[in-house]
Amino acid sequence: MEFFISPAIKTLIDLALQEDIPNGDITTMFTTKKDTNVSGYVVAKEELVFCGLPLIRAIFEKITSKNIIITEKNSSDYQKTDLEVKIIQLAEEGELLQKGEIAFRFDGDARAILMAERTILNFLQRLSGIATMTRKYVQELEGTKIKIVDTRKTAPGFRALDKYAVRVGGGYNHRMGLSDGVLIKENHIIAAGSITKAIESVRKNAPHTSKIEVETTTIKEVEEALKSGADIIMLDNMSIEMMREAIVLINKKALIEVSGNVTIERLSKLRELDIDFISTGAITHSIKAADLSMRFEHITK
Amino acid sequence: MEFFISPAIKTLIDLALQEDIPNGDITTMFTTKKDTNVSGYVVAKEELVFCGLPLIRAIFEKITSKNIIITEKNSSDYQKTDLEVKIIQLAEEGELLQKGEIAFRFDGDARAILMAERTILNFLQRLSGIATMTRKYVQELEGTKIKIVDTRKTAPGFRALDKYAVRVGGGYNHRMGLSDGVLIKENHIIAAGSITKAIESVRKNAPHTSKIEVETTTIKEVEEALKSGADIIMLDNMSIEMMREAIVLINKKALIEVSGNVTIERLSKLRELDIDFISTGAITHSIKAADLSMRFEHITK
Amino acid sequence: MEFFISPAIKTLIDLALQEDIPNGDITTMFTTKKDTNVSGYVVAKEELVFCGLPLIRAIFEKITSKNIIITEKNSSDYQKTDLEVKIIQLAEEGELLQKGEIAFRFDGDARAILMAERTILNFLQRLSGIATMTRKYVQELEGTKIKIVDTRKTAPGFRALDKYAVRVGGGYNHRMGLSDGVLIKENHIIAAGSITKAIESVRKNAPHTSKIEVETTTIKEVEEALKSGADIIMLDNMSIEMMREAIVLINKKALIEVSGNVTIERLSKLRELDIDFISTGAITHSIKAADLSMRFEHITK
Amino acid sequence: MEFFISPAIKTLIDLALQEDIPNGDITTMFTTKKDTNVSGYVVAKEELVFCGLPLIRAIFEKITSKNIIITEKNSSDYQKTDLEVKIIQLAEEGELLQKGEIAFRFDGDARAILMAERTILNFLQRLSGIATMTRKYVQELEGTKIKIVDTRKTAPGFRALDKYAVRVGGGYNHRMGLSDGVLIKENHIIAAGSITKAIESVRKNAPHTSKIEVETTTIKEVEEALKSGADIIMLDNMSIEMMREAIVLINKKALIEVSGNVTIERLSKLRELDIDFISTGAITHSIKAADLSMRFEHITK
Amino acid sequence: MEFFISPAIKTLIDLALQEDIPNGDITTMFTTKKDTNVSGYVVAKEELVFCGLPLIRAIFEKITSKNIIITEKNSSDYQKTDLEVKIIQLAEEGELLQKGEIAFRFDGDARAILMAERTILNFLQRLSGIATMTRKYVQELEGTKIKIVDTRKTAPGFRALDKYAVRVGGGYNHRMGLSDGVLIKENHIIAAGSITKAIESVRKNAPHTSKIEVETTTIKEVEEALKSGADIIMLDNMSIEMMREAIVLINKKALIEVSGNVTIERLSKLRELDIDFISTGAITHSIKAADLSMRFEHITK
Amino acid sequence: MEFFISPAIKTLIDLALQEDIPNGDITTMFTTKKDTNVSGYVVAKEELVFCGLPLIRAIFEKITSKNIIITEKNSSDYQKTDLEVKIIQLAEEGELLQKGEIAFRFDGDARAILMAERTILNFLQRLSGIATMTRKYVQELEGTKIKIVDTRKTAPGFRALDKYAVRVGGGYNHRMGLSDGVLIKENHIIAAGSITKAIESVRKNAPHTSKIEVETTTIKEVEEALKSGADIIMLDNMSIEMMREAIVLINKKALIEVSGNVTIERLSKLRELDIDFISTGAITHSIKAADLSMRFEHITK
Repeated sequence: MEFFISPAIKTLIDLALQEDIPNGDITTMFTTKKDTNVSGYVVAKEELVFCGLPLIRAIFEKITSKNIIITEKNSSDYQKTDLEVKIIQLAEEGELLQKGEIAFRFDGDARAILMAERTILNFLQRLSGIATMTRKYVQELEGTKIKIVDTRKTAPGFRALDKYAVRVGGGYNHRMGLSDGVLIKENHIIAAGSITKAIESVRKNAPHTSKIEVETTTIKEVEEALKSGADIIMLDNMSIEMMREAIVLINKKALIEVSGNVTIERLSKLRELDIDFISTGAITHSIKAADLSMRFEHITK
Repeated sequence: MEFFISPAIKTLIDLALQEDIPNGDITTMFTTKKDTNVSGYVVAKEELVFCGLPLIRAIFEKITSKNIIITEKNSSDYQKTDLEVKIIQLAEEGELLQKGEIAFRFDGDARAILMAERTILNFLQRLSGIATMTRKYVQELEGTKIKIVDTRKTAPGFRALDKYAVRVGGGYNHRMGLSDGVLIKENHIIAAGSITKAIESVRKNAPHTSKIEVETTTIKEVEEALKSGADIIMLDNMSIEMMREAIVLINKKALIEVSGNVTIERLSKLRELDIDFISTGAITHSIKAADLSMRFEHITK
Repeated sequence: MEFFISPAIKTLIDLALQEDIPNGDITTMFTTKKDTNVSGYVVAKEELVFCGLPLIRAIFEKITSKNIIITEKNSSDYQKTDLEVKIIQLAEEGELLQKGEIAFRFDGDARAILMAERTILNFLQRLSGIATMTRKYVQELEGTKIKIVDTRKTAPGFRALDKYAVRVGGGYNHRMGLSDGVLIKENHIIAAGSITKAIESVRKNAPHTSKIEVETTTIKEVEEALKSGADIIMLDNMSIEMMREAIVLINKKALIEVSGNVTIERLSKLRELDIDFISTGAITHSIKAADLSMRFEHITK
Repeated sequence: MEFFISPAIKTLIDLALQEDIPNGDITTMFTTKKDTNVSGYVVAKEELVFCGLPLIRAIFEKITSKNIIITEKNSSDYQKTDLEVKIIQLAEEGELLQKGEIAFRFDGDARAILMAERTILNFLQRLSGIATMTRKYVQELEGTKIKIVDTRKTAPGFRALDKYAVRVGGGYNHRMGLSDGVLIKENHIIAAGSITKAIESVRKNAPHTSKIEVETTTIKEVEEALKSGADIIMLDNMSIEMMREAIVLINKKALIEVSGNVTIERLSKLRELDIDFISTGAITHSIKAADLSMRFEHITK
Repeated sequence: MEFFISPAIKTLIDLALQEDIPNGDITTMFTTKKDTNVSGYVVAKEELVFCGLPLIRAIFEKITSKNIIITEKNSSDYQKTDLEVKIIQLAEEGELLQKGEIAFRFDGDARAILMAERTILNFLQRLSGIATMTRKYVQELEGTKIKIVDTRKTAPGFRALDKYAVRVGGGYNHRMGLSDGVLIKENHIIAAGSITKAIESVRKNAPHTSKIEVETTTIKEVEEALKSGADIIMLDNMSIEMMREAIVLINKKALIEVSGNVTIERLSKLRELDIDFISTGAITHSIKAADLSMRFEHITK
Repeated sequence: MEFFISPAIKTLIDLALQEDIPNGDITTMFTTKKDTNVSGYVVAKEELVFCGLPLIRAIFEKITSKNIIITEKNSSDYQKTDLEVKIIQLAEEGELLQKGEIAFRFDGDARAILMAERTILNFLQRLSGIATMTRKYVQELEGTKIKIVDTRKTAPGFRALDKYAVRVGGGYNHRMGLSDGVLIKENHIIAAGSITKAIESVRKNAPHTSKIEVETTTIKEVEEALKSGADIIMLDNMSIEMMREAIVLINKKALIEVSGNVTIERLSKLRELDIDFISTGAITHSIKAADLSMRFEHITK
């Protein structure tokens, strides 16, 4: 098992199919007879990190009424008959494809494939887009220990999928959501009275399995967070100079995450810092869709 | 009523809240007491077209257990008590905000607002991002009759929302999905035998309320589509020259939609053509999130 | 693929099974041992157009925990073992069955089949009822170009299914719902100011893939609709005489749909008119259930 | 509380709204401005038993974003402001309305009301249709002790609603589904070995709160059912003569239900029998939709 | 088919998997490669009645993307290849297992099995716990005709499952819920005016398939219930003496159910009474989880 | 806001209401007229920690069609009219109630309250049962620094609720599920090759916000876990002597969690150890339902 298609993801697929095909495909239904077979492939139209394979099966399972199968190339499974859709996987999940490279081939019921086409591509183009952009950020940090991590700035309903694509692209995940990681921000500090009080209360009450991270914007806040025993200190929107000062101060006693104003251009400066993580929302909220196309070769009536 | 929050959109909001807060906000819960009140505002951090207001109420309705209210500025409704969250709308839906302009102010239960913050912003940044990018495309065509229309290349589950944002940004909607508009593409033509046969079958069978659009890539296909009585002819991935030839040929007997290879840079050339629509997936699949921030002013314990 | 069982239809099947069997079948559970096998058939008890085959598989998939299979007569698939339920299709979807003709045979786990029986029949009797009644309307118009089209007066939750059954019965579909077809009625005209203003606004704003239909009740309205370029003009509740006048006026410049007071008796008069469509809610909201019965032949303990 | 709108019924309403309005009402949206107010009423266009009032509120709650209110005539609640939709109930649930009588009046946001119109009417016309037809059956039995009861032949997903409408029409409910009432039919008898064995096993195992009913088609079966202590004996598809013989035999030792071949014409004969119940699927599966219309009086822009 | 996994139970399984694995298993994902295979077994760590087998398949169907199979020992089905998870059933549903006895063995994809482990065990430990406790109550009544019946005091969402486990443990089910059995309690009596009036109204109106039960706490109430023709009389929280008096009074004219203050210790006294049923919430609301453990034998990378 | 009723919890409430009241309450419906009002209270029938207040409102919101309100004692909100149900909270969430103490009073529509009664009590008795049992464990450790923490052994679908009740009872939460905390067990160690390799891989790949916990059963494993930098070491099913040895070895370099064979009796020994956490499944999987009763005082027809 590569990736767990959770009940929530199945619901998202249901939403996608329902919005696209509430009452059948009125073009295909009246142009393509029900016994028609089609084969073809999905191809990269630019360099990209391919991501989303486990969704293809999950989408076809919602559309077809017979079994579908996904095999690796040359697998004997491919000989099985009676399948409504067969897929031969040519690219590994996470593989870097060059323009013109084929991700996978398919063969099966034309109506099912034509109906699934756009939903599959809409998922693949988003996830591959995230993986591809993440890879660019990761490459800029090659040779350092610094990890690119994501944020909660994902498309609503896509948290698990967007974060999966970040991993496929070579990045790492920050907390999943508000229930599984402590991140003390300005408002929490004001509400609690001080960084110290906030950390104390959280350490006493929150699950002991979670580390405690504090968002800081000044050296004074860094000092207080450090003194209160924060496990992770986020340097938020600081200048390079202030960050250098903070890093010296922290002196490995806490993990350091840099956040805010992170662009791919600025990574060449950030990579010089002795930090652990750089987090950025851009790899999930402002991605360029990866250019993938579904092409058809044979239609057999 | 500005926009209908359909059952499917409510499901999407549920997915978003569930993925972010499956077990409460473990930072807020242990730093912010349950009687705390907070006020603040959402502000544009760059020029943007504001979009997503109807979702704010829908999200708070899922979180709060008392009524919430959204009023226009100075409305007497704002005086109502006992509400868990009050919102004063300062920007109209679709208004162009300058950097630093406030979209809306809020006042209410701190825990509810802190839990809703990211989900609200994740929706607003996507929808405002689409509206803002659409507006740029629309502006490039100002002074012409040409309309920017969207495609089915939306985020899965976001079809109605993404298309709403396109409208808010000044664009127009293409068909909703496969069930409500006929678009005959290459595979349908192969399956049916010819453009003529495909159009005939669809005209005979599909709902009479739908126009028939044919995707063409050659002049020959344009000719056949025209002859067969297509209502709309899509010129797909054609050169400017070939499009000029097609336009002359069509001679107003069908609506003309240009598609493929549409970039904002190329619009300056496309705007010279005597066409009706330019469709592009970029305004929904490759958007830059609009930069909106939630800021807190007063926390009252 | 004959028909797409969408996520919404699966939800409807879930509602049906849950309401009928929330806690098991307390008669079958205590009279029929778990290893019992049963075979039998579903038979038409009157002349009817058979409709609903794709639902049988979908319903069994919700009940059985092993694979089920639907084959055509004499198919070798039928020899497959280990299936919980096997079905041999004897009638084609849409076939006219005479009283006593068998639609399909089944063989398999007695408990699963007894639990599925009523839910399957409840779907089949409704869909076949719609198809059968539609066929009667269609036959009355034989020899003319006029098409019978449905309306939005379907059972709540059954829109796609009811409209599918209309197609199976030889009828045609009107718009799916409010989002995919424009139908300007009296209130829209009042709200917009006039037919002309309503059409102008819709033509400017609605998806270009939708035709514009206007409901008219007077000759004056027909004139205005025609002048404003309506694609389809509905003659609603008009006398035969007024319709004749309208048809001359329209003179093929718009499609003509007749609506209101459509009974099967009145079709003999309506068929004389030079119109394109007759729409009627009766074929979906006032159908007589088709009389189908499930009979059991062998029970093997 | 008149009727419990269960979670399953809310799901059915969601399905209905989603299928009708997946992406907004493209006619209303572009003809009717967002500040428009409308008032009007729902009127009976034929004599009918009005049924479905609790659904009106439930449907508006899914559409409007402000409160809605349903009041009885002259209630001071009607003065409340800020409501998106106000409804004045003029007819009681279950009231017999004459042609032209008004069921309820409404006043509120035009877009919300125009979007809700068809979904509300589709529910009302079905439920009132069932109630009206049930009343006709009930009237035929007036002066006798015989009750009309429904069956499980309801529209899938409508079990609770259809059975509610039967009650509103003066009929009574049979078991809800397979989990709450024992009805031993031919196949159960074959599977168990005999009526006696089937009853014994069920009496020993099924909930003691359920009576045991046996379907019989011969006098011999009646005798065995009676001897085995069946609480209710169903005389299925018997001739009047055979039923008379069975009634004498049973001699009040079990309740008697007549089923099969029940038409409104045949009730004049059946009413002469000394029986307790007549069950018929026709009142739920073959109903004529009640003719109700929504009319608009004032549109205020 | 042993037990119907209804749509509602599938929803409960979805809730369970979603809450446990919203974003993959971050321990397994990073320690256990995707091609790893594991085999092992589930073993009883104390004497228990095994219950829950049908859920194992249902849970794996939600997790794995290939088929899973459950076979009886030595079945040739076990040889089938390409399955993601194979299960060999060693214990029958409802079998009494001794400490150390194996319920079933499994073999398959390590990630799928490790992710499913806790959800499967959480269901099994609850259901087997209920079955085991029920069996203890049943044993205390051995040699009498008295049946142990459950109540509506089940875990929310578990009604069908908890009641199934009661049956597996040798107990019997009371009514499923409020819609399928009549139980007249004190408040209903007050609201109706008297026991007599309550019974009369219910007998006239409620489905004739339901018996009528009345809760009584005094001899006077027993007398009235009996006189009004109650089918079942519940003796609620009465002393042994009062119950003896009631039993004499009832004299087999109604079924007798004892309720309230039922502990396993008190059963030795209650078993001496001439009653039909003893109902207790303890077997569903205060169960001790059965001690079952999943153990792993071979991990093959 | 006390507690976030997430979409998943709302689904669980829907399941609970649907299983109890699929077709109305056939006892209440026919004994209690629709205008009846009832008041009463919920009382502790034994000493218990009250837990579940936020669910009361959530349940009534699913049943009533008018607003409901929950106020603190003497609040002026209580004077509000037109509410279907009013509740006066007398006990704080988490308050220790003595036998006979009232948790809250209610007043409102009798049908709504009678239908909600069992569902509310089923939630309250479970959650208060968990809180009450947790409190007993916590009290045994009073005077030490040791915290009682829960496990993933919760009722399926109740993870967030069960863990909330543990907090209300004075306990602390372990990880929410498999996605948010790392717990390396025997199988992960085998699959990875060694504790060291497992920790290394997880530290490199898992979210940096999660601590790493290792389950150990021997001193050798403790040594390796410690050496590899585990944040938390679980001493699983060890003897007191072995634990003492492990504690000395660990020497505060990691947090220590004791698990396995934790009974309330054994806590008196475990409290002597210098450890941080004791985890036990018993407080969620083997709870005794808290004894709460709903009593009615006035029924007004």
